[in-house]
Amino acid sequence: MSVPDLVSGARDGDPRAVGRLISLVEDESPLLREVMAALAPYARTARRAHVVGITGSPGVGKSTSTNALVTELRRAGKRVAVLAVDPSSPFSGGALLGDRVRMQDHALDPGVFIRSMASRGHLGGLAWTTPQALRVLDAAGCDVILVETVGVGQSEVEVAGLADTTLVLLAPGMGDGIQAAKAGILEIGDLFVVNKADRDGADEVRRHLRTMLALADRGEGAWKAPIVKTVAATGDGVAEVAAEIERHLGWLEESGELVRRRTRRARDEIESIALTRMRARWGDVHGRSELDELADAVVAGESDPYTAADRLLDVLGA
Amino acid sequence: MSVPDLVSGARDGDPRAVGRLISLVEDESPLLREVMAALAPYARTARRAHVVGITGSPGVGKSTSTNALVTELRRAGKRVAVLAVDPSSPFSGGALLGDRVRMQDHALDPGVFIRSMASRGHLGGLAWTTPQALRVLDAAGCDVILVETVGVGQSEVEVAGLADTTLVLLAPGMGDGIQAAKAGILEIGDLFVVNKADRDGADEVRRHLRTMLALADRGEGAWKAPIVKTVAATGDGVAEVAAEIERHLGWLEESGELVRRRTRRARDEIESIALTRMRARWGDVHGRSELDELADAVVAGESDPYTAADRLLDVLGA
Repeated sequence: MSVPDLVSGARDGDPRAVGRLISLVEDESPLLREVMAALAPYARTARRAHVVGITGSPGVGKSTSTNALVTELRRAGKRVAVLAVDPSSPFSGGALLGDRVRMQDHALDPGVFIRSMASRGHLGGLAWTTPQALRVLDAAGCDVILVETVGVGQSEVEVAGLADTTLVLLAPGMGDGIQAAKAGILEIGDLFVVNKADRDGADEVRRHLRTMLALADRGEGAWKAPIVKTVAATGDGVAEVAAEIERHLGWLEESGELVRRRTRRARDEIESIALTRMRARWGDVHGRSELDELADAVVAGESDPYTAADRLLDVLGA
Repeated sequence: MSVPDLVSGARDGDPRAVGRLISLVEDESPLLREVMAALAPYARTARRAHVVGITGSPGVGKSTSTNALVTELRRAGKRVAVLAVDPSSPFSGGALLGDRVRMQDHALDPGVFIRSMASRGHLGGLAWTTPQALRVLDAAGCDVILVETVGVGQSEVEVAGLADTTLVLLAPGMGDGIQAAKAGILEIGDLFVVNKADRDGADEVRRHLRTMLALADRGEGAWKAPIVKTVAATGDGVAEVAAEIERHLGWLEESGELVRRRTRRARDEIESIALTRMRARWGDVHGRSELDELADAVVAGESDPYTAADRLLDVLGA
C-alpha cells in the first residue's frame, strides 16, 4: 500500500493500516517524512487524543491496571489505543516484552488498538519514535492513548514528557515508595494509583505519598495530584481512576497547560528530527567521518572538545 | 585566580584549584572553553587516569564499597579521585546527596580528592558535565577516578559510557537480581561485586549472575566479567576487587579496547558541546525563538515535524 492509502486507511480506523504506519515509525523508515506531512492536516481538524502515560516499577501491576482501564474507557464508549513502549537496552537491542498476551481481553474489540513498540535506538530511541507513533494513533481517531513503559528510571521521566496526563502506579510491599519519590516520580505524577489495595500496607503507602506530595505542593492554581486506591485484578477503584484522568484533562484545557505541554512536545520532536539529520552528516550512522577524526585528535591531546565542536559546526556550514 | 593559574594549580595537585575548576564545569561556565584548551596538551604527555564507574541500586552498599576501595587503592600508593554524580530530577533541580559525609575516612588525605557534582540539567546534564570533570581530574594527576552515580536506570548506562571499567554492585535480599539483569546491567558490567556477602543469599545471587553471564557470553577474546564477593564494611574481598580492576585495565590496553572506549567518549563529548551550541541558537535556552514558532505551527496542524526540522536547519545555515 502507498503512503496516501495507508494514511486514509488509518483515518478510517483500519487497524492494519495503523499497524503498518507504526511499523514504519519503529523501523525509522525514510517514508516517515511523507507520512507525517500527510497526517499534519488532521491535527488541525480532529479533536486530539488524550495521551495518558502509565508508569511504575515492575511488579506494581501495570499490565493489569492498563487492561482494567481499557475496560473502563470502553464502557464509556471511547476509542482506545495502548502503546507499550520498551526502551530496551541500548546495547543488546533485545526486547523485554512478551507479557503483552494478557491484553487478550481486548484483542477482538475493534475499538481498541494494542501495539508494543521496541525502541531500537538506532537514532533517538524512545524520544524519537514514540511521538510519531502518537501522531499516527491520534490521526486514527483514538480518544485516549495509554502509553505504558516497560522499565524504570529515565524512561518514566521520558514518558511523562510525552503524555498529557501521567499516572504513577505504586503498590504495597514493594519497598520502593521512598525510592520512587527520590527518583523524581513525585514530580512527574498527575495522578497516583496505589494498586493491590487489598494487601497490607496500602494505607501506609498512601499516607506516605500524601505527606511527600504535601511537601512538594506546587501552590495556588496548580493541579493537586489525587491518590486513588485500586485492586486492578477485580476492577475495584478503576472507575475512579478513569474519572480522575478525565478531570485532569479538564484542568489541562482550562489552565492552558494542555497547549503548553503539547507545544513542548512538538519542540522536542522537531529538535530530535533535526539532530538526527545532523548526526547522519557527522557520520554517527555511517562509517568513519569528520567526527571520528576529531575524536582521535582529542584523545591524542592535539585538540580539545570545544575546538573540535567548532570544527564540527563548520562541517555543517553553520 | 585566572584560568592559567587554576590549571597550573590543578597540575600541581592543589585540591582547591581542582575544586574550582570542577565548579566551573558544574556551573557550565563560559570559561570552560579556555579551561579545556589549556588542559588538552596534558592529555598528550600524562599517563591517563583509569576511570572506574561504580553503579548499583540504592541499598547495595555503594558508598561503603567506594570508601573501602579508596583505602585499598591508597595502600597501593595511587592518587585517587571520587566523583559522586547526582543525575537529579530534571524537574526540580534538587540534589539527592547528603550522605557524602561518610567519605570522611579520607577527608584529610591529600592523595584523595572527593567531590559531589550535581547535574543541573541546564544543558546536556550528566553526559555533558561529567566528561569535563574527568578531564580536570585527569590533568590533576589522578591515577584512578571512581565515578559513583546516585540513582538507578538510565544514569547507570550513562556512567558505563563514561568509564573505562564499570563495576556493578549487587547485594543479597534486594530482590532485584533479575530486574538488574533486565535493565541492561549485565551488558554494562566489566566486574560484578556481590556485597554484603556475609548475609544469606549471597551465593544465590552469585550463582544466578553466573548463569546470566554465561548466557550473555560475548565469545572468543572478549572480556569475561568476574564476580567477586565482598563485605565492604569490614574490607573483606576489597583487595580482590582492586586487583580485578587492575587486570581489566591490562586487558583494555592489550585488546585496544581502551583507545576505542576513549575515542567513543570523545565523540560523544564533542557532539554534545556542538548540540548545546546549536540549541542556544534555536532558543532552547533563551526566550521565544524560531523553534517556538515552528512548534506552534506543528501543534496547530499547519506544519509537520519534518518540515519544521528542515526550517530549523535553514536557520543554522546548514
